[in-house]
Amino acid sequence: VNVRLEVEYDGTAFCGFQVQANVRTVQGELEKAVERLAGEKVRVIGAGRTDAGVHAAGQVVNFHASLRMPPAEVMRALNALLPYDVAVSEATKVPEEFHARFSARSRLYRYWILTGDIRSALLARYTLHKSVPLNLEAMQDASAYLIGRQDFASFAGMGRGVPENADGGTVRTVLQTRLERAQMPTLFGMQAQLIALQVEADAFLPQMVRNIVGTLLDVGTGKLSTEEFRHVVQARDRRAASATAPAQGLCLIKVNY
Amino acid sequence: VNVRLEVEYDGTAFCGFQVQANVRTVQGELEKAVERLAGEKVRVIGAGRTDAGVHAAGQVVNFHASLRMPPAEVMRALNALLPYDVAVSEATKVPEEFHARFSARSRLYRYWILTGDIRSALLARYTLHKSVPLNLEAMQDASAYLIGRQDFASFAGMGRGVPENADGGTVRTVLQTRLERAQMPTLFGMQAQLIALQVEADAFLPQMVRNIVGTLLDVGTGKLSTEEFRHVVQARDRRAASATAPAQGLCLIKVNY
Repeated sequence: VNVRLEVEYDGTAFCGFQVQANVRTVQGELEKAVERLAGEKVRVIGAGRTDAGVHAAGQVVNFHASLRMPPAEVMRALNALLPYDVAVSEATKVPEEFHARFSARSRLYRYWILTGDIRSALLARYTLHKSVPLNLEAMQDASAYLIGRQDFASFAGMGRGVPENADGGTVRTVLQTRLERAQMPTLFGMQAQLIALQVEADAFLPQMVRNIVGTLLDVGTGKLSTEEFRHVVQARDRRAASATAPAQGLCLIKVNY
Repeated sequence: VNVRLEVEYDGTAFCGFQVQANVRTVQGELEKAVERLAGEKVRVIGAGRTDAGVHAAGQVVNFHASLRMPPAEVMRALNALLPYDVAVSEATKVPEEFHARFSARSRLYRYWILTGDIRSALLARYTLHKSVPLNLEAMQDASAYLIGRQDFASFAGMGRGVPENADGGTVRTVLQTRLERAQMPTLFGMQAQLIALQVEADAFLPQMVRNIVGTLLDVGTGKLSTEEFRHVVQARDRRAASATAPAQGLCLIKVNY
């Protein structure tokens, strides 16, 4: 059967999603758990190849294996086998042709920026702290230039392995961006003052969201104008964009099929 | 001058608050940072000696040093010197006689339990997951027996070092307990279904909150009646109570002076 899983992970202690020799990866942990359950060698396919340190609340994967138990039991068994920083939140049987990566219509990522003077130890694993005041309106104006089908070579990182869509080029379609202030209660009693950036696209280039965030931060601090941001988008040259924002603020929220 | 700091930390990567040889502790990191700033050997005194893995949003410490800069600058400098998982959220000059531990009137701790079938990878560092349904009303009824000045020997762990109050006995005053369901938004898009236990006491014995939580969980699952919980409190014998709940669900929220 073809099994589809929704997977949540804390990326802090992983060298990214994709299997590599001799390091701890999410795909590697998932394959180890599924193989123990199925008693056979299994390839787990993921919708998004998140980098080291990037989290996921709604990663989607699938695998083919000869398992007889119902999906709910697969979920329970995998959660017992997986380490504490990976969890399966949903398991379903899907048609044989379902492919977590190629069937995906879009991916939604969110990046959290903690604002204010004081950094937080308890939010440090999941946010980027920026004490410089940020001009949210300018960042919103600039982010509008991302929308649509364009060549995003300016935001393409030096990723390993195969790209998220099959063609290998740097043209992608950004479907929506959303930038807003959020005041959130935390488990720890304090209210966090945050800025959330959400980007949805058909597929992403390696480090694309983090390169966009890094460049938008330069707009927020006034180092770049919105007009200059537009030129960065149009330059199709990685050297035009700003530094890559750190991994820990980023989370793969949802994959749409 | 005598400087008072409010300190936040993620306890995951610490062997507790209190300095010990050859391991990473919160007190050790604070003393290293303050010593670099002050250029002299400094003892940092903490209000609560949290165990390995226990977090703090509002730990209070103080230290005596000959520093000339204003407290806001002390805070900024310390945040630049401290590792990512410790942060200073407030710094003030206080009278010479202020002592973070002995001047404290009470400490407030919170313990988070994640409920529901499915564990969470992204909340695993800060919650205990319990998939068994819990009878909250029974736990609330039982927790009422904790209120007041009593001998809490049943909940006393094998702590190292000096106790939080000077007398060394096992009598403490629990001022309030609060147990409630909470649905919280998370940074990761999903809503978390949680139970929070808050306990405020003049001072705590080593592992007292975690031993209370462990025993209340047995009330929640029906293994102990509220009446039996009362007997545990009155037994003054550690062997009467249940297993110690794991550290990661616990956070020192506030110290009152």
